Amino acid sequence: MSSNYKIERDTLGNVKVPSDVLWGPQTERSRNNFKIGKRMPSQIIKALLQIKKSAAIVNAKDDILSSEKAHLIEQTINQLLAGDYQKEFPLVVFQTGSGTQTNMNVNEVISHLAKQINPNLPIHPNDDVNKSQSSNDTFPTAMMMVANQAINELLPVLKQLNRSLTKKEHEFKEVVKIGRTHLQDATPITFGQEISGWVSAIAHNIDFIQNNQAALLELPIGGTATGTGLNTPENYDVDMVKQLSKQLGQEFVVAPNKFQGLANHSGIAMMHGLLKNLAADLVKVGNDIRFLSSGPRAGYDELSIPSNEPGSSIMPGKVNPTQIEALTMVCAQVMGNDTTINFAESQGNFEMNVYKPVIINDFLESATILRQSIDSFTKRLIDGLTVNRKRMATLVDNSLMLVTALSPHIGYERSAKIAQNAQKNGLKLKEAAIKDGISESNFDRWVNAKRMTNINRK
Amino acid sequence: MSSNYKIERDTLGNVKVPSDVLWGPQTERSRNNFKIGKRMPSQIIKALLQIKKSAAIVNAKDDILSSEKAHLIEQTINQLLAGDYQKEFPLVVFQTGSGTQTNMNVNEVISHLAKQINPNLPIHPNDDVNKSQSSNDTFPTAMMMVANQAINELLPVLKQLNRSLTKKEHEFKEVVKIGRTHLQDATPITFGQEISGWVSAIAHNIDFIQNNQAALLELPIGGTATGTGLNTPENYDVDMVKQLSKQLGQEFVVAPNKFQGLANHSGIAMMHGLLKNLAADLVKVGNDIRFLSSGPRAGYDELSIPSNEPGSSIMPGKVNPTQIEALTMVCAQVMGNDTTINFAESQGNFEMNVYKPVIINDFLESATILRQSIDSFTKRLIDGLTVNRKRMATLVDNSLMLVTALSPHIGYERSAKIAQNAQKNGLKLKEAAIKDGISESNFDRWVNAKRMTNINRK
Amino acid sequence: MSSNYKIERDTLGNVKVPSDVLWGPQTERSRNNFKIGKRMPSQIIKALLQIKKSAAIVNAKDDILSSEKAHLIEQTINQLLAGDYQKEFPLVVFQTGSGTQTNMNVNEVISHLAKQINPNLPIHPNDDVNKSQSSNDTFPTAMMMVANQAINELLPVLKQLNRSLTKKEHEFKEVVKIGRTHLQDATPITFGQEISGWVSAIAHNIDFIQNNQAALLELPIGGTATGTGLNTPENYDVDMVKQLSKQLGQEFVVAPNKFQGLANHSGIAMMHGLLKNLAADLVKVGNDIRFLSSGPRAGYDELSIPSNEPGSSIMPGKVNPTQIEALTMVCAQVMGNDTTINFAESQGNFEMNVYKPVIINDFLESATILRQSIDSFTKRLIDGLTVNRKRMATLVDNSLMLVTALSPHIGYERSAKIAQNAQKNGLKLKEAAIKDGISESNFDRWVNAKRMTNINRK
Amino acid sequence: MSSNYKIERDTLGNVKVPSDVLWGPQTERSRNNFKIGKRMPSQIIKALLQIKKSAAIVNAKDDILSSEKAHLIEQTINQLLAGDYQKEFPLVVFQTGSGTQTNMNVNEVISHLAKQINPNLPIHPNDDVNKSQSSNDTFPTAMMMVANQAINELLPVLKQLNRSLTKKEHEFKEVVKIGRTHLQDATPITFGQEISGWVSAIAHNIDFIQNNQAALLELPIGGTATGTGLNTPENYDVDMVKQLSKQLGQEFVVAPNKFQGLANHSGIAMMHGLLKNLAADLVKVGNDIRFLSSGPRAGYDELSIPSNEPGSSIMPGKVNPTQIEALTMVCAQVMGNDTTINFAESQGNFEMNVYKPVIINDFLESATILRQSIDSFTKRLIDGLTVNRKRMATLVDNSLMLVTALSPHIGYERSAKIAQNAQKNGLKLKEAAIKDGISESNFDRWVNAKRMTNINRK
Repeated sequence: MSSNYKIERDTLGNVKVPSDVLWGPQTERSRNNFKIGKRMPSQIIKALLQIKKSAAIVNAKDDILSSEKAHLIEQTINQLLAGDYQKEFPLVVFQTGSGTQTNMNVNEVISHLAKQINPNLPIHPNDDVNKSQSSNDTFPTAMMMVANQAINELLPVLKQLNRSLTKKEHEFKEVVKIGRTHLQDATPITFGQEISGWVSAIAHNIDFIQNNQAALLELPIGGTATGTGLNTPENYDVDMVKQLSKQLGQEFVVAPNKFQGLANHSGIAMMHGLLKNLAADLVKVGNDIRFLSSGPRAGYDELSIPSNEPGSSIMPGKVNPTQIEALTMVCAQVMGNDTTINFAESQGNFEMNVYKPVIINDFLESATILRQSIDSFTKRLIDGLTVNRKRMATLVDNSLMLVTALSPHIGYERSAKIAQNAQKNGLKLKEAAIKDGISESNFDRWVNAKRMTNINRK
Repeated sequence: MSSNYKIERDTLGNVKVPSDVLWGPQTERSRNNFKIGKRMPSQIIKALLQIKKSAAIVNAKDDILSSEKAHLIEQTINQLLAGDYQKEFPLVVFQTGSGTQTNMNVNEVISHLAKQINPNLPIHPNDDVNKSQSSNDTFPTAMMMVANQAINELLPVLKQLNRSLTKKEHEFKEVVKIGRTHLQDATPITFGQEISGWVSAIAHNIDFIQNNQAALLELPIGGTATGTGLNTPENYDVDMVKQLSKQLGQEFVVAPNKFQGLANHSGIAMMHGLLKNLAADLVKVGNDIRFLSSGPRAGYDELSIPSNEPGSSIMPGKVNPTQIEALTMVCAQVMGNDTTINFAESQGNFEMNVYKPVIINDFLESATILRQSIDSFTKRLIDGLTVNRKRMATLVDNSLMLVTALSPHIGYERSAKIAQNAQKNGLKLKEAAIKDGISESNFDRWVNAKRMTNINRK
Repeated sequence: MSSNYKIERDTLGNVKVPSDVLWGPQTERSRNNFKIGKRMPSQIIKALLQIKKSAAIVNAKDDILSSEKAHLIEQTINQLLAGDYQKEFPLVVFQTGSGTQTNMNVNEVISHLAKQINPNLPIHPNDDVNKSQSSNDTFPTAMMMVANQAINELLPVLKQLNRSLTKKEHEFKEVVKIGRTHLQDATPITFGQEISGWVSAIAHNIDFIQNNQAALLELPIGGTATGTGLNTPENYDVDMVKQLSKQLGQEFVVAPNKFQGLANHSGIAMMHGLLKNLAADLVKVGNDIRFLSSGPRAGYDELSIPSNEPGSSIMPGKVNPTQIEALTMVCAQVMGNDTTINFAESQGNFEMNVYKPVIINDFLESATILRQSIDSFTKRLIDGLTVNRKRMATLVDNSLMLVTALSPHIGYERSAKIAQNAQKNGLKLKEAAIKDGISESNFDRWVNAKRMTNINRK
Repeated sequence: MSSNYKIERDTLGNVKVPSDVLWGPQTERSRNNFKIGKRMPSQIIKALLQIKKSAAIVNAKDDILSSEKAHLIEQTINQLLAGDYQKEFPLVVFQTGSGTQTNMNVNEVISHLAKQINPNLPIHPNDDVNKSQSSNDTFPTAMMMVANQAINELLPVLKQLNRSLTKKEHEFKEVVKIGRTHLQDATPITFGQEISGWVSAIAHNIDFIQNNQAALLELPIGGTATGTGLNTPENYDVDMVKQLSKQLGQEFVVAPNKFQGLANHSGIAMMHGLLKNLAADLVKVGNDIRFLSSGPRAGYDELSIPSNEPGSSIMPGKVNPTQIEALTMVCAQVMGNDTTINFAESQGNFEMNVYKPVIINDFLESATILRQSIDSFTKRLIDGLTVNRKRMATLVDNSLMLVTALSPHIGYERSAKIAQNAQKNGLKLKEAAIKDGISESNFDRWVNAKRMTNINRK
């Protein structure tokens, strides 16, 4: 960055600002005052630009901003949205809890770039760009817009995962394998059935997310400083939501209560709770697959996963379930982000919640890394998953828990005794049953692994 | 408990069981093997009894249980449901993770009590009472039933809170007070508006809970051991759900996928996530009220809360916001329970999740203590909440942030200067404005606290 | 409870109190105002009694309480500590956040029982029993005392677990088995080595707990209302700590800062963080054992665990790792309690933290259920753990990852090729190595599973 | 990045790698397979380079690596450590859970850069650079090194905060102010006393962190693949730790148990628990300061904080406690990261925990943002904190809770009545006391705010 500075002033006095940047004094103050951690996500900047563009249009329509200024603001924002101006937005997540400094960063950059475009029509960052707005309503409006967009992007990837799984479910519909409860051998199921449980878990989560996404469409724009709409023209909120809906192709609504919209982020926190729920269920799916593919010689070894890379720097020839490891680490991060967001959500006071940046940052991180890792997991693991049919058949054949099918015929207690004898003496179940006086024909009639799965019942 | 024992046996051998109890050997084993923490919630016992009653009816209908036995089981269960048999169910939450031991406790008590009722018709705990069932499907079915019931009981209390708040909202609709953002004085609002934000936050949570409650109606009954429905007659699942729906007056459905229903508790975990979200928003409401009623002499002192008890053992005359303290401690517990449940949900393996008892125990605790504390908070605090109008008016009158109403007329920068001068010199805003050259008539026209609230806009 | 009432009065007026109880008006108000959840742990009541006994002694010594009253209070408390008075302490956890109501419950019961003992020497609950005290210092002092005691009780059980594990470690010191990383077959270890990792993890946690336990010895007694020690005689704090240390046989210290001692519970929260850490490591140990004993026919089947009870209500003969299930559910609860406590710890304001009861309740629950479940796990699972040596040997024999021992001799790449060929063609490693040109004698010299474990290196 | 590719091969086959980079096929595979979230922290890369340098030295000493190769590796690593090679390490956190791919990235970059330095002495990434190592021991060794370093950097900043606070404590040692418990007016304290509580809370956390830091010095280097030390020379572990200690000027120790060192990260998880505890206590300090400085006209207004930037985009002249907002958002993130790390810690299996990258990434984030925000908070808020003495005195003067000083003289009940009358009738306490018959001289003798603070007691 240049070592040359220009002097700019705000209401607190003069500030030295690098001469080659578009930002102004308030951005510069924040840049110096908050040297902490990661950048504000670029999606938020983009959403704020879109809000300010809509505001210029509505303000002009309401005759509180000249149409010349409105057009210049619009033109400036279009240029910012089209180009690569990322370096003009240097502020971090851990700043003021209302996002005011990022809102002012956006106001200042628009003001300065507008001056480059038309030096004869000064655009004031507060009085013009921020007209009819406050950080207190623009920032949470931007939060809603980007949270909703992140869910829009996550859902197709989740559905793609379930399509891939469903394909496998059909492929292995009748492949009988051992069931396991408490990790112990249980009665048989088919691998298609097992997959159907995974599909159902994910489908439940897709439903939960979809059924609740409307909560992200409520924009508190027009609330300004405390939710009352001070300094906004009549119907400004409705007009803004129309503009934004049109601009983004997404049907937003005016938040039913703007006080809540500024002081609470219930919808975003709720939706992240659903992401956390999804994460928990994905851990289960991931663990199932990695244990079922454990081995190749000393594990369950029922599944084979693609060899995407050498697994070990010291053990030649090792293949590891790395896609699952990335996915479950993502899930761990999502669980953590939920703790952060829930704590933050609880800490609003009066007309404001001052944990906004960390709430939206962590929400976006969760949605993004879930999307990326699920996509990767689907393409690089699920789509290449194969079964070791012979191994599955052997394990069913050796199993003792097929004894459960005897129970309705000979009772729980005698059945238990047969299973215990088989285990104690290393016998197959059939051998132990015959020893106990069951006829071979009865055994074969009663105990049929595939029939026990009820796969053809409906 | 009696020091006399009788000998009972199960498939592992003989067990000494106290002679004066209705439970049997498996309950006794568990009672000895798991001396850890708290009792299994009684709601679960009740739900299991209802399931076993339905099962007897359906099994008889399907001719796999004699109608005599079915009637005896039904009669026995009716007696257990009507009487006080709590001591017969001594097992704890921290037992086997499938709840098998509690399922067997119920089976054994039914079997033993049936024997007292009719000594000539032996009822086997597994072969008769548990027929067509496995702990693996009865227990999660019971979980759904009781979780749903707990939500049924919570919702009216939540709605009652919002009715009480709404009454206050209307009562204080036009009482102007200072707004606060970042805890700092901001532009005015009415107390009615402030309350409306609380109402909206709670209403959002009510909506979230209601919109998702259907997830709790999916009963995995009929899945038996691994989800396949082994050892159940045709249509058993549908018949059971009909029976249970009729018996409980609640329209349950057959779980769309029983493998998921045994191995995941996505719906319960999701719903608890919503309780956690509610808890976060209640903390905000509680904090707002306790800070606004802080004082009486050295605090915000805008609100007065009922004096329900002496507040201090050493400071005479002290009144504390104790209902809020109980409520927010409850919220802290709910947040913790969510961590427990989410962890537990993530740890399913293959055909089973073995954290069932702790999941349902913590769910019930959260729903119960939320219900009890919200009810108490509503009746003992909200309903008696009054405002200190004079104090509110004084604070508005002294405020500098009414300057925001000047901004559209004289610009942000000059407005800021006026506010800064007022603060620096201990002036009222009007004095500082006039000093800066604003005419008194303009000031009075532009700055009107009540109009700034836009309370009458729509 | 009796339907007869007596009228008692406190500073807010008259209260109807059941005539057959020892508590007074403030207890009764709380009992009616807080019908929420679980009882205050009895350990807290006991600690408060001990504090009040010490206070009577110190107050008499300082001549601000007559020796007659002091003796009567002491005598009364001795009776309460010796007898079964649990029903006289009916208040719940979710009450006022300072525990004032429980402090007053204790004051009132002492006052009333003293009156039964000596009707001629009235003992005032505030002016006499509570003299030189405030709930604000007695309650957090009691919290420290009971938290420390709970850790005192947990540690021997943890150490017993490690002794039992160490015995197994020595027993299986040289039993070679396959190692597993990423769940995939890796280079061999001995089972003793594997156990030593568990022992070390638990030993680390024991060290952490022991090294930090001193933080629980800091008693804020003498801080009274806000930490300043108002209304206490000189050296009261030192005298009280001496009395309590003597009474309890535990060397407490005066809290280095009483303001912190009332408004923060850093030490308790920190120690619970260590319990949570222990919980995480116990989950790992538990999961290892239950996976290694998975089977018996379709799992890893390297270990056998005791059959403590029939495992399934439908599958005869099933044995499940139920002790581990209880233990890991406990761990899940501890993780949740940590979220609760950490949130609570963060929410202090000014001279007080009003989440005291839930903090200490959850701390005690965690310490208690960890103690109980670890004890049960040790005695009912670890002590009965056996290994399936033949199975372990077979798995090592079949393994491909012994190839790692070839690597220093023939390089990583050629080693990888040999392992891949073996896996592709279903060969043993030795066969594949010989095919690749390794001489049998070299292979046998280089690849020796037991030597690969370095078990005899030091 | 160049569109030109070179072909490189690893044990799974050929890979197209950009021609202008130093990494090789395994890095490239990972880069393509894991397009998820954030980069592996650069500290980890640096630590791995240091490990590999030490390994080359030790391997040469043990005659298993030629001294030429060792020197070339050393020279290459020195160049990498000195220069800006960040772009050569493109891999992300969400990769294989052992960090193998980053370990291989480092091996490959060293191998390729060595080739540029000396094309005639090929250095093999596995056989030479990785000699005597496995990702399984190098990565957790690097974790320990960077976690310890992060704590080394955090501690001075924490101590600096406490020095700044202590300066303020002394400055305001005798400034009497109202105490607040339950947010309600309580007995007086001095502001110095209040600050001393904050200092003590932070000092406790400093102690906790320091007393436990030794847990981060245990390096599991030499464990290689499964902890047994396969393919390492005798004493390799000791030699490595000596080398690393010398190289880094930090006395590390050989991990007491390498199985635990690979499969558990108890020390890191424990230490992060302490960071979480610190975060909770910082929230309390931050909240106290922002509430005490709330206003300026409608809040507590006891403190004034520096005006670092304009506070509002719409409300001119507003000053907000933004440093605290950044700090408490950081605390929220740390709480979340603790959930992530604790979950991850619990999920180890057998000889490995595959959540390593997310554990160390989140640990480093927490330590870093705590350090940065505490530093900023100290310099930009605490150091500029001033008190409003007049306001503090007025609030004490008006307070009713000075009544507590009457209690030892006239009893709790009469004192309460006086306070209640004062509040009811808007009287000062003294007026109400005199009305109740207390003589003025007695009142003045008994009630003295400053003496009530006991500030001069010791």
